[in-house]
Amino acid sequence: MAKRKVCVVVTARPSYSRIKTALTAIAAHPNLELQLVVAASALLDRYGSAIDTIKQDGFKIAAQVYMVLEGENLATMAKTTGLGLVELATVFDNLRPDVVVTVADRYETIATAIAAAYMNIPVAHVQGGEVTGSIDEKVRHAVTKLADLHFVSTDEALRRVIRMGEEPANVYVTGCPSIDIAKEVLENPALDFDPFQKYGGVGSVSSMANGYLVVMQHPVTTEYQLARQHVLQTLRAVRDLGITTFWFWPNVDAGSDGTSKAIRSFRENESPQNMHFFKSMSPTDFLRLVINSKALIGNSSVGIRECSYLGVPVVNIGTRQAGRERGHNVMDVNYEYDAIIGGIRQQISNGRYPIDRIYGDGDAGVRIADLLAMAPLHIEKRLTY
Amino acid sequence: MAKRKVCVVVTARPSYSRIKTALTAIAAHPNLELQLVVAASALLDRYGSAIDTIKQDGFKIAAQVYMVLEGENLATMAKTTGLGLVELATVFDNLRPDVVVTVADRYETIATAIAAAYMNIPVAHVQGGEVTGSIDEKVRHAVTKLADLHFVSTDEALRRVIRMGEEPANVYVTGCPSIDIAKEVLENPALDFDPFQKYGGVGSVSSMANGYLVVMQHPVTTEYQLARQHVLQTLRAVRDLGITTFWFWPNVDAGSDGTSKAIRSFRENESPQNMHFFKSMSPTDFLRLVINSKALIGNSSVGIRECSYLGVPVVNIGTRQAGRERGHNVMDVNYEYDAIIGGIRQQISNGRYPIDRIYGDGDAGVRIADLLAMAPLHIEKRLTY
Amino acid sequence: MAKRKVCVVVTARPSYSRIKTALTAIAAHPNLELQLVVAASALLDRYGSAIDTIKQDGFKIAAQVYMVLEGENLATMAKTTGLGLVELATVFDNLRPDVVVTVADRYETIATAIAAAYMNIPVAHVQGGEVTGSIDEKVRHAVTKLADLHFVSTDEALRRVIRMGEEPANVYVTGCPSIDIAKEVLENPALDFDPFQKYGGVGSVSSMANGYLVVMQHPVTTEYQLARQHVLQTLRAVRDLGITTFWFWPNVDAGSDGTSKAIRSFRENESPQNMHFFKSMSPTDFLRLVINSKALIGNSSVGIRECSYLGVPVVNIGTRQAGRERGHNVMDVNYEYDAIIGGIRQQISNGRYPIDRIYGDGDAGVRIADLLAMAPLHIEKRLTY
Amino acid sequence: MAKRKVCVVVTARPSYSRIKTALTAIAAHPNLELQLVVAASALLDRYGSAIDTIKQDGFKIAAQVYMVLEGENLATMAKTTGLGLVELATVFDNLRPDVVVTVADRYETIATAIAAAYMNIPVAHVQGGEVTGSIDEKVRHAVTKLADLHFVSTDEALRRVIRMGEEPANVYVTGCPSIDIAKEVLENPALDFDPFQKYGGVGSVSSMANGYLVVMQHPVTTEYQLARQHVLQTLRAVRDLGITTFWFWPNVDAGSDGTSKAIRSFRENESPQNMHFFKSMSPTDFLRLVINSKALIGNSSVGIRECSYLGVPVVNIGTRQAGRERGHNVMDVNYEYDAIIGGIRQQISNGRYPIDRIYGDGDAGVRIADLLAMAPLHIEKRLTY
Repeated sequence: MAKRKVCVVVTARPSYSRIKTALTAIAAHPNLELQLVVAASALLDRYGSAIDTIKQDGFKIAAQVYMVLEGENLATMAKTTGLGLVELATVFDNLRPDVVVTVADRYETIATAIAAAYMNIPVAHVQGGEVTGSIDEKVRHAVTKLADLHFVSTDEALRRVIRMGEEPANVYVTGCPSIDIAKEVLENPALDFDPFQKYGGVGSVSSMANGYLVVMQHPVTTEYQLARQHVLQTLRAVRDLGITTFWFWPNVDAGSDGTSKAIRSFRENESPQNMHFFKSMSPTDFLRLVINSKALIGNSSVGIRECSYLGVPVVNIGTRQAGRERGHNVMDVNYEYDAIIGGIRQQISNGRYPIDRIYGDGDAGVRIADLLAMAPLHIEKRLTY
Repeated sequence: MAKRKVCVVVTARPSYSRIKTALTAIAAHPNLELQLVVAASALLDRYGSAIDTIKQDGFKIAAQVYMVLEGENLATMAKTTGLGLVELATVFDNLRPDVVVTVADRYETIATAIAAAYMNIPVAHVQGGEVTGSIDEKVRHAVTKLADLHFVSTDEALRRVIRMGEEPANVYVTGCPSIDIAKEVLENPALDFDPFQKYGGVGSVSSMANGYLVVMQHPVTTEYQLARQHVLQTLRAVRDLGITTFWFWPNVDAGSDGTSKAIRSFRENESPQNMHFFKSMSPTDFLRLVINSKALIGNSSVGIRECSYLGVPVVNIGTRQAGRERGHNVMDVNYEYDAIIGGIRQQISNGRYPIDRIYGDGDAGVRIADLLAMAPLHIEKRLTY
Repeated sequence: MAKRKVCVVVTARPSYSRIKTALTAIAAHPNLELQLVVAASALLDRYGSAIDTIKQDGFKIAAQVYMVLEGENLATMAKTTGLGLVELATVFDNLRPDVVVTVADRYETIATAIAAAYMNIPVAHVQGGEVTGSIDEKVRHAVTKLADLHFVSTDEALRRVIRMGEEPANVYVTGCPSIDIAKEVLENPALDFDPFQKYGGVGSVSSMANGYLVVMQHPVTTEYQLARQHVLQTLRAVRDLGITTFWFWPNVDAGSDGTSKAIRSFRENESPQNMHFFKSMSPTDFLRLVINSKALIGNSSVGIRECSYLGVPVVNIGTRQAGRERGHNVMDVNYEYDAIIGGIRQQISNGRYPIDRIYGDGDAGVRIADLLAMAPLHIEKRLTY
Repeated sequence: MAKRKVCVVVTARPSYSRIKTALTAIAAHPNLELQLVVAASALLDRYGSAIDTIKQDGFKIAAQVYMVLEGENLATMAKTTGLGLVELATVFDNLRPDVVVTVADRYETIATAIAAAYMNIPVAHVQGGEVTGSIDEKVRHAVTKLADLHFVSTDEALRRVIRMGEEPANVYVTGCPSIDIAKEVLENPALDFDPFQKYGGVGSVSSMANGYLVVMQHPVTTEYQLARQHVLQTLRAVRDLGITTFWFWPNVDAGSDGTSKAIRSFRENESPQNMHFFKSMSPTDFLRLVINSKALIGNSSVGIRECSYLGVPVVNIGTRQAGRERGHNVMDVNYEYDAIIGGIRQQISNGRYPIDRIYGDGDAGVRIADLLAMAPLHIEKRLTY
């Protein structure tokens, strides 16, 4: 029997870490051939060059495509999607995959889905049915309507995808592959590296002896103008708490410029003594840093997903994760200095939470690979109502 | 109060005729400013140069964009979508509309919707919630998930859009603007022109005295290889019936080459004595031709929509309109010579059907313009469940 | 020693036939690896699907890229160039060739040259230094300024390229690879196939017993509006002469629509009894047809190049080949019925001409391959004055 | 008489300042209508948002186009060119200019020239015939071959353009418009603003009382890997001299990342006490800063052009300006700490040079506007030999 050719398009550092265990399982599966396409911000230095990590992790790259337009505003996000669509069609036309896998809710996600859908290649969507708000919400559900197979993370997501009119037989709860890495880290949680030494970064170097915080705050697309103001509340709160803090730069999105600039100028003008800034880490190192932290602060989905499994206390700021299912480990606060300070203090005093399997039990990658090998592939579908 | 700027992107002859009364109503509305963008096959000679008609109809064109890739295969459909997205983003960035209107389920429809969605411009979608099958089905519902306002044609469509998770307050049954033109034609149905003289075309010129048929058969995208075979059944059936027939070339779509070629070589090799071939007519002339015909044959949505209102008997061939709501005037048959012959005979003997308002009562254009002027515009939405 | 990777971009039927012997020699060369990219109209059915021939000829295709925008007007030619540039950059980024070969003066030629030049890949240009007029003239010399190696066809071309400021050491007279095929055909000139049977085509089938004409007339880009009018002179002249004629459709270019339409409607309305119309033939079959003809008519460069070597009489119409070096076999006439009739009669009465090696002596392909293997590769250059 | 519509495409801060006086003269000319297109890095915050300055200067913008691909490597430069070509064709198709003006030798320059050339719009090229080396050299001369009118800066450039085969009647020595601004500044040289206050920037604030240096060092495209190393020599030399220094970040180009990074990390790690870093200034302010400086250091063409007229001593580092005509005010050194130190000391001790009109006498803008209004416009050309 011919192996099924599975094309996975990885376009950003966070989506790589989210799909990595599936990539490993696909590459190892006897009935599958992995065609890995690396594109968009995954190629860019400014976003941590995920491609270097991907190569170090031993994956063979079938094609790479530069497609991010500069500007980081609304027009360039749209144009990046279009350019990605143009070029991914050529890539698929040359690779001729049997199925294409697309992840989450980014603009490259929908570019991938449309290219494959128009080319009559079945589309498998990972992480459908979740609620996030803003443009991501629109894109995620639009991709659901374009996809033929749905590998969702939670029971709630399953329910939503089916309710949107998808055939139940095509919707599978696999859990989220990000939990697979969380599981490995939970089994072996020791912080076995020095973050300053291994990852460089910029900012103050202070002691980790009394614990530390991790911060990751992305701009919220449709509140573009406010990005700067929002992140300042967090910067000041974290500075004033005086606890050693590892801050990660946001990934590419409209408004990241606002956020990034606010961070950069705060750092340069205020020289906060307790804060160090990183671009990125390997997913495993990052989770190891997080599991050993006092709390994760910001609006990263890591706080909602991986941290529910890891039991790490999270102070989730603002609307970016609104509507998402969350475990007991998450405390929600507004973009307000006082609320952020209070939230962090409360979460630190609470300490670690018990494990919560809401986003999966750690074998999503293997399940996805098995489904890609076994599930009937088709491209015709209709609303179920 | 500043007028709301309404940008409508017209990309093909059929979608122009479908949205025309709304364009007229928007242009005439005291609180609206129309920004008309003409793109894709609407600019191409090969598809009847809709742009010439648009100019003759007195509309001012804000921008025109060539974006159709040659090849008419699956890869070029995807790439056309991407290129459209890239360029429409620039157009919107320069025109800065308050709301963008996109029609139906074509690739330019989703390009328009994505460009506007990423640029935080509210998207109004006309004709959501209908069921068609194939890639169009995927695209139509994906556009629903990207759109903020839904102007649907039928009660059934309303129900479906809401069930897909859209806020009921944002879904309006306006009827389909194509029925507006059908209404005008029904009020004044006399065939006041000679089709041969006014539109030229190629093929035999035979008498209309004993009535005539109209045929319009498009390729069905995901059955690409079969396009040729399918249309041959219809060509032979219509030829053998010997009734004067006006055949309209298909519009642009993957596979149109297969269909077009079959038609062209049939015409050249067989020189059918009762058939004449047209590229296109003005929407009004076309409906006037249809309302005076014995029957409409093929798989055009005109058979489902306008003809339900006009009461014209329709022989609908194959799967293209499967799942769509239809009136009593439609008889469905397979891609089979005998079934097509039989269907045509039966429909001719039945004669005209009574009017059916399933797709609207003829004032959709005005309703859409009023809603564009009055409806609250917003870009944030969430699944209702 | 690592083989040099030579990427050749083939974008149209005529340029394929023009570079074919070089492709064969590169593929066979022990120190070269051929990376063949097939793009643009070479992929399109409407222009004879050169890709099928390329595959039949046994070449392995490294990538294929659809990039021709529909419209065949001036804007779409520009956009096709741009789209080609975007995508070829991705192709080169993935293939990482040591040198890129680009042929002649088409829009894809300059897209190839710019992509490679910006990517610091040495560019070898075949057929520089020739004079044609119109946009092709501008593009050809612009490519010369972008190229690092020049493989020219004639001594005159060598002189011009050097005079434009290129380092003499980088300019080589290889002859034109199209002459290589002419040489094979001259050595074995028998017409060993029936054109009607082997290539189908449309139009009348008449006897070849008393000899026949071959016509190939392309639109002249910058005289867009006149294309229709020009070709009508030739159509009428050839029809009225009554000699069996094989007419070849023009290849893609702005205006080909004008020319193609004139031909199509002439054929349909006038049904000329002595004319048959083909889309394309294999280069060898085509030259075999030409060498056995009474004369070649039109404005194809085949009349100037291959026919000088073959000694076939040519009636060259209009300005398209103005300024090009030509042998004694070429008679120039205007776009005038009388002049065309007179020219054809005179050339027929003259009969075959002696061989002329102005465009090469038939081993250009091998010379080009050897130079690609041996010539120093560099990307830095300066005007010599 | 209808005004001639002159479309000028401005794509970067430096080219804006270089063409500004021509824009003013075109806008004021009774027989011309200015169509100003702002694109590429001229829209980007990261490169100083030239568009804000353009608006402040009172120009009306006909269209803006985002087109810079992220990555700043060789592939993205090529793709940016292609994307620009695609979109500028649409812009020209909508604006329908009578002539298009393109400036210098950047990738957008050639995108503009190709789009216009294929659309049969006459192209006027400003600054042809100069020698720079690297990819810019190739692009500049390729644009000459695509252009119909040549507005060159120097007699030497005139000679070269004609020698490349251009008709002498189409080549005009206008001088460089950048000298127009230099002339204004020379007539009124007082430094009437505080650079720290007006332009912010980052770095140390030190006294200007004892004079200061200005540095502007761009990466040299084809020496990509060395960019970092090269700029470090300059950074250390300037730091060690201890003279107050205003350093301007490089504009967009492959490798700017290498250069920018080196500057950024040097600044952060070494905190040089005498250096302040700016993104950009208005052209006038910048020249006023330069004319009052002790010397200009780096590889900016300002050192070659404007400074020859201003008589400012220049230490020109490396190969970027190699081959360019220069005045006595320029001293060339290698990328070497010692040579740079020595060069700066020698130039400071020399002091101001006499005015040199090699690049024009200050009325280029008016001359260009007059020529655009008067010169015969045509699109046909041939090599003169």
